[in-house]
Formats: sequence, C-alpha cells, structure tokens
Amino acid sequence: MQFSILKNELYSVLQMISRSISLNSPQPALRGIKIEAENKILTITGSDADVSIKKTITQNDDNHLNIQQDGSILVESKYLLEIVRKIDAEDIDVEVLDGTLSRFSGGNAQFKINGMNPKDYPNIDFSKPSKSFTMKADAFCEIIDQTAFATSSKETRPVLTGVNFALNNGELACTATDSYRLSKKIIESDIQDEFNITIPAKGLNELKATVLVDNNEDIEINISDKKAQFISKDTIFQTRLLEGGYPETDKLIPKEFTSTLIMDRYDLIHAIDRSIFIKTDNMTINRLQCSSDEIVLTNKNQEIGESIEPLIGTYEGEPLDISFSGNYVLDALKALKGTSIKIQFTGQMRPFIITDDNDKSIVELVLPVRTYN
Amino acid sequence: MQFSILKNELYSVLQMISRSISLNSPQPALRGIKIEAENKILTITGSDADVSIKKTITQNDDNHLNIQQDGSILVESKYLLEIVRKIDAEDIDVEVLDGTLSRFSGGNAQFKINGMNPKDYPNIDFSKPSKSFTMKADAFCEIIDQTAFATSSKETRPVLTGVNFALNNGELACTATDSYRLSKKIIESDIQDEFNITIPAKGLNELKATVLVDNNEDIEINISDKKAQFISKDTIFQTRLLEGGYPETDKLIPKEFTSTLIMDRYDLIHAIDRSIFIKTDNMTINRLQCSSDEIVLTNKNQEIGESIEPLIGTYEGEPLDISFSGNYVLDALKALKGTSIKIQFTGQMRPFIITDDNDKSIVELVLPVRTYN
Repeated sequence: MQFSILKNELYSVLQMISRSISLNSPQPALRGIKIEAENKILTITGSDADVSIKKTITQNDDNHLNIQQDGSILVESKYLLEIVRKIDAEDIDVEVLDGTLSRFSGGNAQFKINGMNPKDYPNIDFSKPSKSFTMKADAFCEIIDQTAFATSSKETRPVLTGVNFALNNGELACTATDSYRLSKKIIESDIQDEFNITIPAKGLNELKATVLVDNNEDIEINISDKKAQFISKDTIFQTRLLEGGYPETDKLIPKEFTSTLIMDRYDLIHAIDRSIFIKTDNMTINRLQCSSDEIVLTNKNQEIGESIEPLIGTYEGEPLDISFSGNYVLDALKALKGTSIKIQFTGQMRPFIITDDNDKSIVELVLPVRTYN
Repeated sequence: MQFSILKNELYSVLQMISRSISLNSPQPALRGIKIEAENKILTITGSDADVSIKKTITQNDDNHLNIQQDGSILVESKYLLEIVRKIDAEDIDVEVLDGTLSRFSGGNAQFKINGMNPKDYPNIDFSKPSKSFTMKADAFCEIIDQTAFATSSKETRPVLTGVNFALNNGELACTATDSYRLSKKIIESDIQDEFNITIPAKGLNELKATVLVDNNEDIEINISDKKAQFISKDTIFQTRLLEGGYPETDKLIPKEFTSTLIMDRYDLIHAIDRSIFIKTDNMTINRLQCSSDEIVLTNKNQEIGESIEPLIGTYEGEPLDISFSGNYVLDALKALKGTSIKIQFTGQMRPFIITDDNDKSIVELVLPVRTYN
C-alpha cells in the first residue's frame, strides 16, 4: 500500500475515528485504526466492539488523496494520531515497507512504525438493516442532549444505561431513567413503522461527538434488533443495542397534581448551584418549602452549615415541604430550554414533574428523597 | 465581627490566598482561611506551614469595604471560595452570628457556615528578616521560569527540590539541578551583601502564580537563614528555606569542548516533540548523530518502531553519536528564548551544554544516557 493525502484531512478523520477506540482494549487489534486503500478510495475504520465507525475518502483535488498502490494497514491509534498531528507538512505519505512495518513521512521527518496484521482485525458487519428513516442531525442531537444524562451509570440493570426509542402510531418516544429520575421526549413522526430499541448512552454520546457535531443535514438511520446505524455523507456510525425489555414508564408520569410552582428556570439553576457544595453523604439534598406566601430553598448539613435562599415564583396549592437531589433537578433544568418552567407536585413523598410551556415535547420527572430534618 | 465588601475584590484575594492552602492538611486549622477585621483594615491569611500569604485590604471607595465590627473568623477554604464565587450580588456581607458560626449573604442568598476557632490558627511569624533588597517582579519571574523546572521531584536529596540563590561579589547565581541536568542563571547585582539560600521550587511556583503574576513593579525581598519573604504592595508571601548545603555546581559546567552544533531552537524543539511518543521504559531517548555532512535525530524502540529526522544546522568537530533524554533537552530548550542555540559537547558520554548567544545569563547542562543501539 502507498498513498499520500492532505495532512489536515487525514488528521480530522483519524480524530473522529479514534473516538470509538478503547486504548486499552483487551483485543489488541481494536487498539488500532485500519486504513485500506482500494480503487482510489481510502477506507478508515475504528471500533471498540460496541461502537464502530467507518469513513471513506474518495480521491479529489481538495483532499490531495493519491493512491499509488492498494493495500491495508492496522496501526495503534495513539501512535497514528501523534504522528499525523505533529508532522509539519501539507501532505503526508504513507507506505507499507515490509509486512506490518509502514512508513509515515512529511517534511523532513519520517516514522517507521510496527503495525499489526490487518487480517487480525475483526470482520465488522456494516451492512444496512432494513428499517430505515431519516432525521435532521441537529434534531437527533437535541434528543440526546435532553435524555442521555438521565440514564443509569450502574450496570445492575443494563437496559437502563441506554435511551429507549419507541415508535408507535406516528409518535417517537425517547426515554431515559435511572429509576430515581426520568426524562422523556415525545416527537411526532411521519415514519410509517414501529420499533422499540434501547441505544447505549455511551454510543449516543460518541455519535454526538463524531457524526452529529456541526452537522445540520439529514442523517440516515437504519435499525435492526441488534444494531442502530447512522449514515452521514461518507461516514457510517453504528452501535449495538441493549438487550432486554425496557420498563413501561408511561404510568410513572403523574397526570394529576396537588400543587404547582411556576418560576424562572435560571433563578432555580443558580440557587441550586450556589448550595451544591453542601453535601451530605456525598449528595446535595435541597429542601424546598412552598406556600402561597413564601418559597424557600435550603440545604443543611450538621457539620458544614446551611444555605437559605427565598425564591421568586408563583405557587398554587396546599403548603409543601419536599426534599430532592439538587444534582438531579439541576440536570433536568439544564435539559429544558425556556425561561419559565412549571414544577407540578403530587405530594411530599411522591414524584414531581418539571415542564416547559414553550416546549411540550419534553417532561422531566424526579423522585423526592426522605430526610430527617 | 461584621463587614461588607465588593464581592469581586474579596473573591480575587481569596483565590490568591487559597493557592497556599493544602485542602487535606493534617492540621485542620490550615485548611481554613483566616479573616481578621481591625481598625478599618481586613487581613486575610492562608498557609500550608511551608508557604504563607497575608494580604491586607484597607477601606476605600473602590473596594466598598465597610467594617462595622472588629473580630476574626476561620473558615474552610473550599467552602469560602464556593460561596463568594457564586453569590450573585455586587457586595457581600460577612457577620459572626454566634461563636464560630458566621453568615455570608448577598442578593437573596445567605449561608450560615460552621467555621473554626481563629484562636486555633497557628501563630505565623510575618516579621521582616534583616537582609533586604528589591527586584522587578518580572525579572524574578524569569529566574523561576528558567530554573525551577530543573529541580528534583524526588525527596531523596531534599535540597535538590529547590532553587539555590547565591550572592557573591555582585553576582547572583540561581541554580537548579536534579543531578541529571542543571540550569544556571547568573545575573549582575548591585546588592551589597552575601547569601546562599535554597528556596523550594513549590514555593517559587506559588509565588509566581500569586504575587508575581501580571506584576511589573518592584518587589521587596527579605531573607534570613530560615525564610524568604516577598512583599508586593499589600501582600506578604513567605516560604521556608531548604536546609542543608547546596552542592558546588560550578565545576560541573565544562569550559572546553570537543565539538559544537549551532541550529534553530524551534527546529530542535519540534523535532524532539514529534518523536516524544516513542518511549522506552517510560523515557524518551533521542539519539543525535552529527558529522560535518549530516545531523540526524532518531528515536528507536523495538516494539513501536523509530523516528528519523535530519536536522539543519552547523556542526564543527569530530563526528559524534550521543543519546539523551528528549524531555530534558526539551525543557532546557524551552527555558531559553533566542532563535538560534549553541550546543557544546565534550564527548559521547560526557555532559553537554546548551546556550543562547543573545542571552549569556543562562546555561543549560544535560547528561547523556547510555544506550545499546
């Protein structure tokens, strides 16, 4: 194999591909990035077995790609990135010298690097699943931003580490929960199909950082019961799905409420953020006391002390005294976008929901915590 | 105690003072910052027992300082900084409520914090030592930049963890070495005195980040055989000295050489930096082969591969084949400032020195390493 290419083009592709690489993968081949040259097309692949990315670069004047000889190499990702990043030349030359030894050169510098055998790279199936639809990249990015934070970080119930996407009757419901809080976004869809899949949050965050970033075009989404595949221009991103039924969450979201607080979203974000350093058992527990006269947010710890902040808002209903994880409510508030938010309560020890009147697509639910103040 | 002050003024002082605080100090009082109000002056003190900083703020229109009642508090640094940083108000009020409980308030928010008893704070001696001179803050900063990096990070010979300052016959010699490399800066001085002290590199780096940063005024430097004290406007910074005689280093620096390489400083920095990812036993070992025909920098590792880069420069002397720590030479090159540098060799297994013809004050010495290529 031998080719030359614009250094910046190769570097930006390697940077993206490297997002899928696990540097200490127990499977040595997966620590590498595979580069294949064939028929005037360069194909660059990376994978951590869960997430795989493949990008093709076709010879054109802009990218200076010039393939002199077909072939393939497999080189450890961390070395490849360092070399290409620091080579001080417009174009970079890559050439197989002997077996798995390849040479990278540009300017005065050259690197002879011991790679791995590309035949040892796992055979990744990038074929297209049959269920297919398209969505704007930025719209899908917003779904990730508004849900993925609420997934569980614990592996005790693996299915909760992902975001569930359920399409039914022209409605796409995107749900994430760690069983203490829940974030659900429902958008209307003209896709004539049905599916119910759970995509790992890790895969979604990598998708966001690679294919979706600075992208306002349509992406093609193809799904089977094993994988979700996202195609944007010359890039294929795919992630395995989580197995197991996703819990039924519709019934968890209360429809009737005993009281309502309407207030400025940023005021509440800042008030919680100011008190967040007061931690009890490594958690920030905020107490909210509401009546028609007064709304007060406090956070108390025997050793450290306490914060007290009256809030400006409109409260309707019986007086309420409720405690919750400040971080969970902060996450929920940051996922919303409007200025004014509505918090609807169903009682002191029952879940409450946070919504934004300007964006009916999203609902945030948080469970209170019991305290002994 | 009760006072109010411009939030930004208090925050910037606390930020500076907190640089001296060790958050997990075994002495709980030293995790705190002491604030004293007396005679219209606020005094703020922090210390980690090695380094201590004291800043006084005098009531004026700019800082909004208004002391209503004298007294003192001692509050854990991490809480104090969080509270003052996040309070959303122009001015902040501080008041002792009861014993060690104090209240911080601004805007709608208030914090009642359990502090410590200021009487438990160690009695830090900020008195002025007798030997005194002045120096421009930026000139002292340059000394730190050009020497402190070469101090030892190992505690086996404690005196090598500091920079030695020796004043003799109108010459101030500033020396740092970890016994594998050495950096020495000699500046002429009109100070009519003699001293030989070693200041811990940690203290010098904190001095740089607090008192010297963005400061182009004169600082007053007072030294005894126990401490070095730096005074700039209303701030006193002091650090203990390292005990033990500093090794005689003058004789280590060769005066006669067998060969000389003159080349561009940045070219060598970039060439070493490009090869730095190739590590053997966690060290970057560069090999430099020089003759009048060719100058080549390589770095080879059995597993990873090798880098090869011909360099442009002027070499005079017998052909040379020498290996060294790439990181040490990189540090030395970064401490110099000119475009062109001169490397003078005394043989394959003997120290070499790097100098800058435009700045005769500084000399960098590096010991080669033995390799078995």
